[in-house]
Amino acid sequence: MEYADGKVKDLQIAYIGGGSRGWAWTFMTDLAMDEELSGTIRLYDIDAEAAKHNEIIGNRLSAREDVVGKWNYTVSDSLQSALTGADFIVISILPGTFDEMAVDVHMPERLGIYQSVGDTAGPGGAMRALRTIPMYVEIAQAIRAYAPKAWVINYTNPMSLCVKTLYYVFPEIKAFGCCHEVFGTQKVLKGILEETMGLKDVKREDIQVNVLGINHFTWFDYASYKGIDLFPIYRKYTEEHKEDGYKEADKNWANSTFECAHIVKFDLFRKYGLIAAAGDRHLVEFMPGVGDSYLKDPETVKRWKFGLTTVDWRKKDLQERLAKSARLAAGEEEIELKPTGEEGIQLIKALCGLTRKISNVNIPNTGHQIANLPESAVVETNAVFERDAIRPLYAGELPEQIKELVDPHVANHERILKAAILCDFDLVVEAFLEDPQVKGRASREQVEELVRDMLRSTAKYLPEGWKKYL
Amino acid sequence: MEYADGKVKDLQIAYIGGGSRGWAWTFMTDLAMDEELSGTIRLYDIDAEAAKHNEIIGNRLSAREDVVGKWNYTVSDSLQSALTGADFIVISILPGTFDEMAVDVHMPERLGIYQSVGDTAGPGGAMRALRTIPMYVEIAQAIRAYAPKAWVINYTNPMSLCVKTLYYVFPEIKAFGCCHEVFGTQKVLKGILEETMGLKDVKREDIQVNVLGINHFTWFDYASYKGIDLFPIYRKYTEEHKEDGYKEADKNWANSTFECAHIVKFDLFRKYGLIAAAGDRHLVEFMPGVGDSYLKDPETVKRWKFGLTTVDWRKKDLQERLAKSARLAAGEEEIELKPTGEEGIQLIKALCGLTRKISNVNIPNTGHQIANLPESAVVETNAVFERDAIRPLYAGELPEQIKELVDPHVANHERILKAAILCDFDLVVEAFLEDPQVKGRASREQVEELVRDMLRSTAKYLPEGWKKYL
Amino acid sequence: MEYADGKVKDLQIAYIGGGSRGWAWTFMTDLAMDEELSGTIRLYDIDAEAAKHNEIIGNRLSAREDVVGKWNYTVSDSLQSALTGADFIVISILPGTFDEMAVDVHMPERLGIYQSVGDTAGPGGAMRALRTIPMYVEIAQAIRAYAPKAWVINYTNPMSLCVKTLYYVFPEIKAFGCCHEVFGTQKVLKGILEETMGLKDVKREDIQVNVLGINHFTWFDYASYKGIDLFPIYRKYTEEHKEDGYKEADKNWANSTFECAHIVKFDLFRKYGLIAAAGDRHLVEFMPGVGDSYLKDPETVKRWKFGLTTVDWRKKDLQERLAKSARLAAGEEEIELKPTGEEGIQLIKALCGLTRKISNVNIPNTGHQIANLPESAVVETNAVFERDAIRPLYAGELPEQIKELVDPHVANHERILKAAILCDFDLVVEAFLEDPQVKGRASREQVEELVRDMLRSTAKYLPEGWKKYL
Amino acid sequence: MEYADGKVKDLQIAYIGGGSRGWAWTFMTDLAMDEELSGTIRLYDIDAEAAKHNEIIGNRLSAREDVVGKWNYTVSDSLQSALTGADFIVISILPGTFDEMAVDVHMPERLGIYQSVGDTAGPGGAMRALRTIPMYVEIAQAIRAYAPKAWVINYTNPMSLCVKTLYYVFPEIKAFGCCHEVFGTQKVLKGILEETMGLKDVKREDIQVNVLGINHFTWFDYASYKGIDLFPIYRKYTEEHKEDGYKEADKNWANSTFECAHIVKFDLFRKYGLIAAAGDRHLVEFMPGVGDSYLKDPETVKRWKFGLTTVDWRKKDLQERLAKSARLAAGEEEIELKPTGEEGIQLIKALCGLTRKISNVNIPNTGHQIANLPESAVVETNAVFERDAIRPLYAGELPEQIKELVDPHVANHERILKAAILCDFDLVVEAFLEDPQVKGRASREQVEELVRDMLRSTAKYLPEGWKKYL
Ligand SMILES: [Mg+2]
Ligand SMILES: [Mg+2]
Ligand SMILES: [Mg+2]
Ligand SMILES: [Mg+2]
Repeated sequence: MEYADGKVKDLQIAYIGGGSRGWAWTFMTDLAMDEELSGTIRLYDIDAEAAKHNEIIGNRLSAREDVVGKWNYTVSDSLQSALTGADFIVISILPGTFDEMAVDVHMPERLGIYQSVGDTAGPGGAMRALRTIPMYVEIAQAIRAYAPKAWVINYTNPMSLCVKTLYYVFPEIKAFGCCHEVFGTQKVLKGILEETMGLKDVKREDIQVNVLGINHFTWFDYASYKGIDLFPIYRKYTEEHKEDGYKEADKNWANSTFECAHIVKFDLFRKYGLIAAAGDRHLVEFMPGVGDSYLKDPETVKRWKFGLTTVDWRKKDLQERLAKSARLAAGEEEIELKPTGEEGIQLIKALCGLTRKISNVNIPNTGHQIANLPESAVVETNAVFERDAIRPLYAGELPEQIKELVDPHVANHERILKAAILCDFDLVVEAFLEDPQVKGRASREQVEELVRDMLRSTAKYLPEGWKKYL
Repeated sequence: MEYADGKVKDLQIAYIGGGSRGWAWTFMTDLAMDEELSGTIRLYDIDAEAAKHNEIIGNRLSAREDVVGKWNYTVSDSLQSALTGADFIVISILPGTFDEMAVDVHMPERLGIYQSVGDTAGPGGAMRALRTIPMYVEIAQAIRAYAPKAWVINYTNPMSLCVKTLYYVFPEIKAFGCCHEVFGTQKVLKGILEETMGLKDVKREDIQVNVLGINHFTWFDYASYKGIDLFPIYRKYTEEHKEDGYKEADKNWANSTFECAHIVKFDLFRKYGLIAAAGDRHLVEFMPGVGDSYLKDPETVKRWKFGLTTVDWRKKDLQERLAKSARLAAGEEEIELKPTGEEGIQLIKALCGLTRKISNVNIPNTGHQIANLPESAVVETNAVFERDAIRPLYAGELPEQIKELVDPHVANHERILKAAILCDFDLVVEAFLEDPQVKGRASREQVEELVRDMLRSTAKYLPEGWKKYL
Repeated sequence: MEYADGKVKDLQIAYIGGGSRGWAWTFMTDLAMDEELSGTIRLYDIDAEAAKHNEIIGNRLSAREDVVGKWNYTVSDSLQSALTGADFIVISILPGTFDEMAVDVHMPERLGIYQSVGDTAGPGGAMRALRTIPMYVEIAQAIRAYAPKAWVINYTNPMSLCVKTLYYVFPEIKAFGCCHEVFGTQKVLKGILEETMGLKDVKREDIQVNVLGINHFTWFDYASYKGIDLFPIYRKYTEEHKEDGYKEADKNWANSTFECAHIVKFDLFRKYGLIAAAGDRHLVEFMPGVGDSYLKDPETVKRWKFGLTTVDWRKKDLQERLAKSARLAAGEEEIELKPTGEEGIQLIKALCGLTRKISNVNIPNTGHQIANLPESAVVETNAVFERDAIRPLYAGELPEQIKELVDPHVANHERILKAAILCDFDLVVEAFLEDPQVKGRASREQVEELVRDMLRSTAKYLPEGWKKYL
Repeated sequence: MEYADGKVKDLQIAYIGGGSRGWAWTFMTDLAMDEELSGTIRLYDIDAEAAKHNEIIGNRLSAREDVVGKWNYTVSDSLQSALTGADFIVISILPGTFDEMAVDVHMPERLGIYQSVGDTAGPGGAMRALRTIPMYVEIAQAIRAYAPKAWVINYTNPMSLCVKTLYYVFPEIKAFGCCHEVFGTQKVLKGILEETMGLKDVKREDIQVNVLGINHFTWFDYASYKGIDLFPIYRKYTEEHKEDGYKEADKNWANSTFECAHIVKFDLFRKYGLIAAAGDRHLVEFMPGVGDSYLKDPETVKRWKFGLTTVDWRKKDLQERLAKSARLAAGEEEIELKPTGEEGIQLIKALCGLTRKISNVNIPNTGHQIANLPESAVVETNAVFERDAIRPLYAGELPEQIKELVDPHVANHERILKAAILCDFDLVVEAFLEDPQVKGRASREQVEELVRDMLRSTAKYLPEGWKKYL
């Protein structure tokens, strides 16, 4: 890469999982609309054909006249060639297929355990991690060997464990994880502010928050807009809308598997005093499964107005995206140049020195950014991004009650990483038993059987070491 | 205070030491030029007449047509009335008079100990602290009683000990210390960048640095301008200019008691690899007094091209400022509306929510912002200022060699605070003996005699408890 | 001191508070019965006559034929002369008189706050600390000046704050605090073991315990006798005797102001799972005063079968001890040579190298002996005593529930030390308000008035600095 | 196990590596001479025949009339059967054969790297660890499954990494490592004391020391015998005997591969001020290989008067032990009942509650027993052993200079554990390069080739995962 006059040229970005039909196009769109960056995107994917498609789509986009960000898209046929010489590495992969995800999400239902997402915590998150971690071990080793100074941006879930694995294998890695759930909650605050105060065109980025927690279970203990403290406004709103929640202008929880009415979030505010900063579908998976669980059964879920993301839906959605991919590659459809709301490009620019930016990020807690979590935990807090540096802000302490909710997940991250690299069945069972969604809802025997069945059903994407248990 | 539409009205600022002939006018100037803030400045000073003068000067300024920042200046006749209801408290006082400062700076010369400033470290800094700390104990108690939620900005030296005392007495205080030495070094970098790269109009604030250390002995381990790493540029420059240093356009070290040629700073870079970020006059006072001390004797000082600030000079300067005060109050002279380069007003605006700002600040290390200094140390690092919040950035670790230079000063801060509140003679002797400028250069007996003489000669401004030793 | 052939000769022990009518004789008795130590006891007391009496009593004892431990007792007329050359320093003083103690114990009763001891926590403990800390500042300064290498044994209450003050003033001091409450609880365990298992002559020292907590509020999370776990035995006993408690052979709580039936202790075991290891009179003062307080009123106290130690009783007791002192000095009565059960002499012997001993001790938590208390807390745990060294054992963590009980006292120790050295009225009020016995039971105004009255009534023994509030 | 009247009956001890021809007989001897313990020893070994031999030898010994400690020796044919129901688990195994050890010790000589032992640090220690760790993963998993409450005593080298692996896999394990090097140094002190002070029959256990460091690289910062400080005595002796060293009565370094003249130890005392507490053969392997290395070449080794333990010697020695095993099993030779000087049995007795004992032990630093090493390091310090508990003593801080020697080994323990479980070639190379014996003495290419050759030559005892590199 080369900096001159406020622009960076010849930036080399390796994109692992570059065959994606979805997030890749988001990334291309943002790149296309920014004139201060240019260079090469090296697409790497185990599905080489998919990568090839995106190469075509990307280069077609770059060639358009209305596109100011010009990039050269190429397919790399090995990790080594993708990484060697890269300035940035983007990782966004799907570990396994939707068949494996169906096991993650739905098999635990036999014990009454419903999962709204199933990719982060809970049995689904754990199983997905067991497939993902070995891949991340390999990726980290490759980065250490071929691009040890590159910045690594992770988008894959389970976020905390992906980032944790990268740092475990290669502690000097310059990696961080990005997730937009916080932005979603900023938008909720923006909407409430506009609705209640009559303000217009509040920018999402101007909702300043202090972020603390772990990915998909983050919290704000501070939210301001200019000279206005948003906490009293939020408090009043949550009291008045505890039943109907907050409805985004263009979204409707009842029509979408991804949306929610935010009343779980409102309820958590009432109980814990902080603003939970992820979609309700994610938040509920971190909470205890016994007692008044938001995920008790499908009826309860309906009452709390969020959706259970079925894998059937995902499969159908994939078909549509495959079709779209074909159309894009064939030039039958064009990518629409509309800002996506992602900050990825902004962060890359900041790391190139073009701006200085404060944003939320998932990295190990080595700066003690959350004072009462261990250094080894991967946490999500704000950080300053500047040329070749990320500096976490001191986010303070989690309140004791919330810390008690977070602690078992942090402990499970340690446990699952260990389970994955040792192929240790008992540790998986322990992780399930300690997961709040499982704890107290099934016997050890039931859990052992579930773990065994889930391993068996996803064995195709698991290392050899698990064979002995199956 | 009241926020509306991007402005803050009716801000109440208590100014302790408001009779100042110097910094007060700087503050007034900045306030006068900013149209987003308005309110009342409550001037409090033990010299009531001086405060009265500034009331007149301030209100006269506010009345000018070319002034956009309108403030009401009033004199408060007690700490209680100044503080009650204040949103911000600014403290900038002179503990004692220049007669006491003459003792601080010059009496140690009898042991061959020359001090270029004498208000921070060394015998002078310690004695000044013994006078200052009791005042700060009282101020902190008053803030706790009358304005516990106000933001407190300290400008008095010794900075670290003033801030430390405030937090010691009232741990919940929202206090921080501001110093412009870092800005001075950013300006040096800006100048070198312009000189060597042919750039123009680089803004001081765009020289992004990572600040770590203690006040007047801060360091940069990172310095960037946009996409450019300033370290290789600085390295080259310091090698080529190790003898002549860097000369600021409008400044000449040989003509001024405050200036320097920065060759101490260049020499420290060669030895330690980081950019020392204070004026050379300050830096040298933290370094060992034995061996190749930059402060060995006046000849050595001359060779290193910085000045020993004599108190005679300060006394003369005061006379001029007194005269100017009279002229300003009488309307015979006008304050010039020129930006002063201080960030105080900017920080106040950020704390009001009008902006978000990253700046260097002196606060306790409770956020572990410097990972290898104790939590109780008052450190200087960057922090984010936003509405009603300061969040330190994680600054990393001091390199081992620099930490060894910093450690004795951090230890002396503890010792001197303790000595001041216990009126403990032996602790002062110990603090002198452990100060790097004194260590190894005088016997315990000599130091005991020096301490006794210095206490005796400044007794007028010291608490009763010291009497028993004099 | 001089070691040879398993004995230590010419040991120099300074005894501050050496005019005591009580503990001094205990100490003399133990010294008299041990043939491995000899030397000089330097008695220092502000009541010089009392010290003189003990000189006579001590030397008379040493002269007896049945006495194997020969010591020379002398009166020192200054701290300097007592300390210079001392190997050990014993401190056991009464800060003020019983008139001040009457204020400590009884004045808070006007707010319904009853204190069973009033010398450690609660309003009484705090006021006593305000008198004691200035004396300990002076003692610590004297030790630093005249005997910096001597071992210092503290017996004065409030223990934690006395030890804390010594280390605050002179961090390198080799000081520790001894208290026999733990021994008392070991004796209860011994008694229960003998009673339930039919064992005989179990030695108190063979009841091995893991001690953790703060003085007078210590806990055992482990208690063994040889191969036997005492926890199940204790659990069973406390269930069967929750009403009648445990009755020591030669003691009866109803007859004595110092005794108890241990049913508070049993109740705490039921609630918290650990064995509280101090007399019930002490334990209750650390517990919350609202809700089911053991100290709600005299009737409640009676129901829990412990005594409120009245100061009238103490005054009467003193008269008897004064009379005894006169008889002992006159040779009309002899000291009885019976082991006292104190470990002080054993610890001195261990520090001389004659034995190696594990015992409980009060020192700062600088070895992280209690992992979840701050380093600056003075804690009580086991330590190994050997020649010129005390090495704390790792005691582990306080269980979360008990930590919540301990935390406000640890915080108050910081607060009260600070209040005492700054003469800071508001900090005393805050300390009262945060004390669990006071918290929630009185308004700030009531507490301010109480503090003012207590300070006024004990002003004779307080530093000048308090005058301004009275 | 069952405790009654000062004895423990029916103790179940699993002995992993129970086919040993050497240490097993030491253990049997100590058991045979102690009348307070009895029970069953379950011998488990991958060499079932060897275990069978020891079963015969053990039972034959137990049957002797002069034996007071009666034990039943049995062979277990699986880890599961050995562990289920065990109270104690002893692990003492040889990972691989002497052929692999020959690779460990001698192959690095091609780069000029001579190793005196080759089982702890250096290339040999690392390679041995790569073979051992997978076995310990399996053992730890088995203990977690079958005997999670049992006490585990490790004797296998590399000690630190064996203990570290056990805790990594099963953090709740009650494991510790025993090594007699410290005893050896206590004996040196005892000998010097007797020699210089004319004392007789000083007991090794009465040489009280404060132990701090890591296994085979431990240090004393304190050594006393009763009232006598041994440091001045040791200092004088080392100065007078810097050339000839200290000669144990019955030992001669020149005749034995295991002995030394202790002049390395004396030299380290001169340089670092503490007493190094392991045999010189071990100590030298931890020191830098560049500069004045004690291991520069065989001539240097000779000058420093210690031996390079050749594997040929070990192989010959094994032949003798095999022959002895046959004779013992056949009853042609009897085990001699002479105390072995090991403390293993004493520690077991303490953990049974029969005694309370202070001894040195290898465990994770979770009690912060060494204040300036990380919690995750396995350290060697003193601890108190009592019924079902080990409580580390606070050992203080390693002096800065020694910490700098220890740090790279602690870092390598992390690295090698990770390398072993990930089968990560680059981490092994990094570990070699960071090992002080290798650092600065070979290029990365040379080291990569050496690592590859060593892995290849020992592949039979390494996991599959390494195949891809060979
Ligand atoms: Mg996400
Ligand atoms: Mg300054
Ligand atoms: Mg006591
Ligand atoms: Mg060993």
